[in-house]
Amino acid sequence: MQRNLQELKTRLLEVNDLNSASAVLSWDQTTYMPPGGAPARGRQMATLSRLAHEKFTDPAIGKLLDDLRSYAEGLPYDSDDASLIRVTRRDYEKAIKVPSSFVAELNRHGAESYQVWTEARPANDFKRVQPYLEKTLDLSRQMANFYPGYEHIADPLIDYADPGMKAESIRALFAQLRERLVPIVRAITTQPAADDACLRLSFPEAQQLAFGQVVIKQLGYDFNRGRQDKTHHPFMTKFSLGDVRITTRVKENYLADALFSTIHEAGHAMYEQGIRRDLEGTPLAGGTSSGVHESQSRSWENLVGRSRGFWQYFYPQLQATFPDQLKSVSSDAFYRAINKVERSLIRTDADEVTYNLHVMIRFDFELDLLEGKLAVRDLPGAWQASYQSDLGLAASDDGDGVLQDVHWFGGLIGGSFQGYTLGNVMSAQFFASALNSHPEIPAEMQQGKFDTLRGWLTENIYQHGSKFTPLEIVQRATGRPLSIDPYIDYLRSKYGELYRL
Amino acid sequence: MQRNLQELKTRLLEVNDLNSASAVLSWDQTTYMPPGGAPARGRQMATLSRLAHEKFTDPAIGKLLDDLRSYAEGLPYDSDDASLIRVTRRDYEKAIKVPSSFVAELNRHGAESYQVWTEARPANDFKRVQPYLEKTLDLSRQMANFYPGYEHIADPLIDYADPGMKAESIRALFAQLRERLVPIVRAITTQPAADDACLRLSFPEAQQLAFGQVVIKQLGYDFNRGRQDKTHHPFMTKFSLGDVRITTRVKENYLADALFSTIHEAGHAMYEQGIRRDLEGTPLAGGTSSGVHESQSRSWENLVGRSRGFWQYFYPQLQATFPDQLKSVSSDAFYRAINKVERSLIRTDADEVTYNLHVMIRFDFELDLLEGKLAVRDLPGAWQASYQSDLGLAASDDGDGVLQDVHWFGGLIGGSFQGYTLGNVMSAQFFASALNSHPEIPAEMQQGKFDTLRGWLTENIYQHGSKFTPLEIVQRATGRPLSIDPYIDYLRSKYGELYRL
Repeated sequence: MQRNLQELKTRLLEVNDLNSASAVLSWDQTTYMPPGGAPARGRQMATLSRLAHEKFTDPAIGKLLDDLRSYAEGLPYDSDDASLIRVTRRDYEKAIKVPSSFVAELNRHGAESYQVWTEARPANDFKRVQPYLEKTLDLSRQMANFYPGYEHIADPLIDYADPGMKAESIRALFAQLRERLVPIVRAITTQPAADDACLRLSFPEAQQLAFGQVVIKQLGYDFNRGRQDKTHHPFMTKFSLGDVRITTRVKENYLADALFSTIHEAGHAMYEQGIRRDLEGTPLAGGTSSGVHESQSRSWENLVGRSRGFWQYFYPQLQATFPDQLKSVSSDAFYRAINKVERSLIRTDADEVTYNLHVMIRFDFELDLLEGKLAVRDLPGAWQASYQSDLGLAASDDGDGVLQDVHWFGGLIGGSFQGYTLGNVMSAQFFASALNSHPEIPAEMQQGKFDTLRGWLTENIYQHGSKFTPLEIVQRATGRPLSIDPYIDYLRSKYGELYRL
Repeated sequence: MQRNLQELKTRLLEVNDLNSASAVLSWDQTTYMPPGGAPARGRQMATLSRLAHEKFTDPAIGKLLDDLRSYAEGLPYDSDDASLIRVTRRDYEKAIKVPSSFVAELNRHGAESYQVWTEARPANDFKRVQPYLEKTLDLSRQMANFYPGYEHIADPLIDYADPGMKAESIRALFAQLRERLVPIVRAITTQPAADDACLRLSFPEAQQLAFGQVVIKQLGYDFNRGRQDKTHHPFMTKFSLGDVRITTRVKENYLADALFSTIHEAGHAMYEQGIRRDLEGTPLAGGTSSGVHESQSRSWENLVGRSRGFWQYFYPQLQATFPDQLKSVSSDAFYRAINKVERSLIRTDADEVTYNLHVMIRFDFELDLLEGKLAVRDLPGAWQASYQSDLGLAASDDGDGVLQDVHWFGGLIGGSFQGYTLGNVMSAQFFASALNSHPEIPAEMQQGKFDTLRGWLTENIYQHGSKFTPLEIVQRATGRPLSIDPYIDYLRSKYGELYRL
């Protein structure tokens, strides 16, 4: 049995090495690669992905999993070996259902529609992408249909990002959330908007980067096992548990952009850096779902990084970094500026309160498109209508409307967006549990100490990697099922104080 | 036939992609990787190399080469297809003779002895590395013996670096060279040494880097298809013909270090950037040998970069970059400083004239060790004796003696060094031919123009990649066999003027 297990781990390590190599090539592509490197780089990454897929779907892995079945059944559910075998089997059975030729076609189409989108978005030209998006929808349906027996056609696609979660339960959760969220948004946005002019002065890049790095180092991001580089669209990537990198971009005329994206990506990275080192090189050595991952980036960005206590500690340092710009801005004014709430058209620019409305609109469209209730050609009109009804705004054009997000232009339709809002909801539930166990956390944050919080998150979430599904980890970490209540409580408390709701 | 050829190219492209990915990982390892990434990185690179080796030695490739034999025989020798099939067969037959288990053992031992060497060198502790070096010698002999029928046991090892070249002919060439070189060195070093104090002031890193980049851009290094980053030991690496990178290091108290290593690595890179784009992804898309590669790095570094004409153009710019340090240094004084000749202990610090003596000492030791004439335990004594007789110097310790070069501590004994001196010899022969065809080249260099020279090198050397062996390329490019005469003529002319020989 141990020999079978060792053989399985050796094979999985090879797959892991190929995927890690591909991640290095991708990181280089978006940080340092000269323009001339592009054509070969795309091909090289495709070769690595194809080999990784071939190695992972090798029937020998299926045979080893079969041979290990009775061994795994005799182990506790949460043991490393049982978890490794269970999670590998889940991913293996997903992977073998999709023919390699389909994966290749999907990648080819994804690259092509991404290219078309990069031209169509600035030109506000939905017609240009429409046939590509129609093909994407067709491929997304085909993908789902490799997994017959689903309750909702989106379920197999959601399962890729958030294992074990389903369209119907997410839809129900989101309906509750919308019902509670809309009145809060309305109550805030009928009041005078906060003034964030103090964030829109001139902040030199070098100092912005240096300050951000001081902050995330103090939060617990380990620079011996990571680094930060510049890119166009910030992301976190992992090459091993000892090398978890983040990227950022800097707008010299808007202080909040690099600062909060740096904390956000560091949140993702601390999750990965917190995984138990002896899971290295296995399928367990990664965050468990897009929702749980996002719960950590959003926790550190918003629940920590946009809190009063955090800035009680860091604001004097920020003022010292930018004395000309901030010396006459009070800590309270700065706090209000970074928590300004307003209806807006662009998801990625949205504040903490309205953000989920953007996400839920997209989630509903994914279900409607997959169900056949909505045709791709009708999407721009439907988009305008939803923004009007949910956010009270009319988009000036499709570039700031249906064309704004990359997700559908290079990936699938289905499973792309729910993680953002699931993450927000989870973040508050985790945070409330951490505070329940450690009421000293808020006082510690005011002193620039984050070890207790990070320790609780590591103990209850990070260390496990992907041993547990998102719903399991919520239950285990907080003692109850996923619920929107802590999130609504958090928003009411924070924004009630800010806006006297 | 075309289908077989296409199938062969597809398989070779996969091998190429794996090797290119490994090169990206290696570049990252020595430029940006955080310390925590090291353990997994070594393993990831080993996985990629192993897979590349497996894919390349697949019997299907042998079968395709057999099927293509008569097709290739009907083509001109220098056609792309004939060259591809010929060079692939040569490399394939080399590769299949070495068992994978031996390659793995070699890599394991290489990594281990490199690690021990990094500690033994600063400690001057030859005894520490002796058993590792004995094993390296043993493995090197085993490696050679996978290719029975050689004339000299070093031949198969030399053939890896410089295909088609053999120990006996190199030994004869080096004997001639030594005979002509030693009197020149003696004549120079009995005169007062040149003064290079002007290079040993304080030169801020940023300006050094910027100046070096201006220089190599003007030489013809294409930054759209490459970039320069910092590292400990400068190197050139290629991920595709569109992405050929160089690295450098900067010593703020020695101007010549970054400057000439930048030009040197750019010389390697311009060779790779000059390969015909339609050879991309095949085994032909790389420099043909260590000697020819070194001929290009040394041409640009020395024949161009240390020439009077070059500095006639660039010295005013250099003075403008470092006015405080160089305003009172004449162009002639600077030229003498960068061409200072002196007997020294360290190969990598040696000047253009004495450098080859260092290389030839090592080449002789490689042959003696492989032949069994010299035991590893006697190497330090033999080293001291050779430096005394050839360079008139006694090394203070083994750290500055036998332990100074990395090559034997991580690689093989045999084939490691001859390329450096072959490169010097070839550089002068190529350069003389270029000048013969284009007598205007020296005058153009004085005006900062290098297109005619680079054009001749591209036409005669670069574009062919590895279609031809080093001896073939010398014959084709210069119309005669490899000879030391142009190199001796070059040295006599340049240093005769400098030192009135």
